[in-house]
Amino acid sequence: MLIRTGISLDSELLRRFDRVICKRGYKNRSEAIRDLVRDYAVAEDVEEDRTVVGTLTLVYDHHRPKLSAQLLAVQHHAQALVLAATHVHLDRKHCLEVVLMKGRSSQVRRIADQILTLRGVKHGKLVLTTRGKGLA
Amino acid sequence: MLIRTGISLDSELLRRFDRVICKRGYKNRSEAIRDLVRDYAVAEDVEEDRTVVGTLTLVYDHHRPKLSAQLLAVQHHAQALVLAATHVHLDRKHCLEVVLMKGRSSQVRRIADQILTLRGVKHGKLVLTTRGKGLA
Amino acid sequence: MLIRTGISLDSELLRRFDRVICKRGYKNRSEAIRDLVRDYAVAEDVEEDRTVVGTLTLVYDHHRPKLSAQLLAVQHHAQALVLAATHVHLDRKHCLEVVLMKGRSSQVRRIADQILTLRGVKHGKLVLTTRGKGLA
Amino acid sequence: MLIRTGISLDSELLRRFDRVICKRGYKNRSEAIRDLVRDYAVAEDVEEDRTVVGTLTLVYDHHRPKLSAQLLAVQHHAQALVLAATHVHLDRKHCLEVVLMKGRSSQVRRIADQILTLRGVKHGKLVLTTRGKGLA
Repeated sequence: MLIRTGISLDSELLRRFDRVICKRGYKNRSEAIRDLVRDYAVAEDVEEDRTVVGTLTLVYDHHRPKLSAQLLAVQHHAQALVLAATHVHLDRKHCLEVVLMKGRSSQVRRIADQILTLRGVKHGKLVLTTRGKGLA
Repeated sequence: MLIRTGISLDSELLRRFDRVICKRGYKNRSEAIRDLVRDYAVAEDVEEDRTVVGTLTLVYDHHRPKLSAQLLAVQHHAQALVLAATHVHLDRKHCLEVVLMKGRSSQVRRIADQILTLRGVKHGKLVLTTRGKGLA
Repeated sequence: MLIRTGISLDSELLRRFDRVICKRGYKNRSEAIRDLVRDYAVAEDVEEDRTVVGTLTLVYDHHRPKLSAQLLAVQHHAQALVLAATHVHLDRKHCLEVVLMKGRSSQVRRIADQILTLRGVKHGKLVLTTRGKGLA
Repeated sequence: MLIRTGISLDSELLRRFDRVICKRGYKNRSEAIRDLVRDYAVAEDVEEDRTVVGTLTLVYDHHRPKLSAQLLAVQHHAQALVLAATHVHLDRKHCLEVVLMKGRSSQVRRIADQILTLRGVKHGKLVLTTRGKGLA
């Protein structure tokens, strides 16, 4: 259910806000503020260890012996958490992999750490976001 | 070519470092320090607008009229940059999508902004990482 | 001049927002949203290299030969930028110093880097914020 | 006690690292790596709620009725935690204040939230760092 709420803001501050969000591509103020509000809600989900969605981006060297096998092993071991994984061949040596997970934020973080500390993984980052519900 | 370099560190600081990296899962010190060093190199790539890999994670409401079409349109328009996209149905209403991109960091950021500001996209985050080269 | 603007939000999302901001101590919604909006405006100031206020927090070992002299030298050299500095003796060996600056964000960052890379500075972080104007 | 440890790194990655740290002002590799290692140690202190140093930077409008009194009240109430505060008049209307604190990270955060959510505080940020010990 959509409801309308009023906020009071200084006119100059509002002008600046409008300019920034327009540059980023927002069509209107409500949409931009909703995004700020949702950030808060997602941060709360993460902190309180609720169920979240996590995507782990990693770049690795697939010539590294045993790394592919280890990546598969960690993901299978964490089976219930891993929703999908996408793989792209960046060049002869390097692979990009994105692992999509769903679970409590502490669990998702643990899997991410297990993967990121494998030898041959060159860089990686975990994003935690909402599983959708309650962020209408 | 792997070379060996020496660093001098206080013994207590080193003990603390070893404890933290062990907890995170690193097998040895070199691997953990290499990861810190790579972070620097990736940050430099991003700042100097070199070619990087970007993955955009977004959660959206697929009942929102026209959103799927808009998502496709933005991605097709940015064709050269988009390597792949993975989609997962989170529940009846919500979709998780990860868009894998490669391009100059400013270009990748622009596409991400175009997508994140679409109405119906509930939350999202962009990760910028290396395309692999020069991070051995 | 204070003006009032309306935003539309899903009722559940709004309830969650109210809960989070209440926990943090906000008295009302407008105040919390104003803070989010101001973050955007400050980020814009920093990106566009406008005049900002910077505070550099550093912890250093004052037994390190020449460090105090170097800290003074850097600050005097950057005279026009440095507004004040506060110093606290943490223990026999360690000092906390906070350097308050005002200038273009790139200038403030350069001074911060000069100080943070001095030998004997153990940890430090730079905060960039508004100089006040235009954030009413 | 300073000890020397060896790390192995790819030569190209090392060249890139040297270039970045030189640009930032580091005199040598050991110093730059020590700083990265200390970041880890500080993050651990914060996470495990140990005693840390916090500096809260805030910009506020001193014409706002009662704000100065409220700022004083919060700081006095948290007396044991507040080490010092520095105040700078930015312009006729705006004040910059930096509050230096020492305490468990959760306590320091709570005080910071109490101050940042006061009406009339326009922007602010908390930095958590080491109290010095164990970061040699």
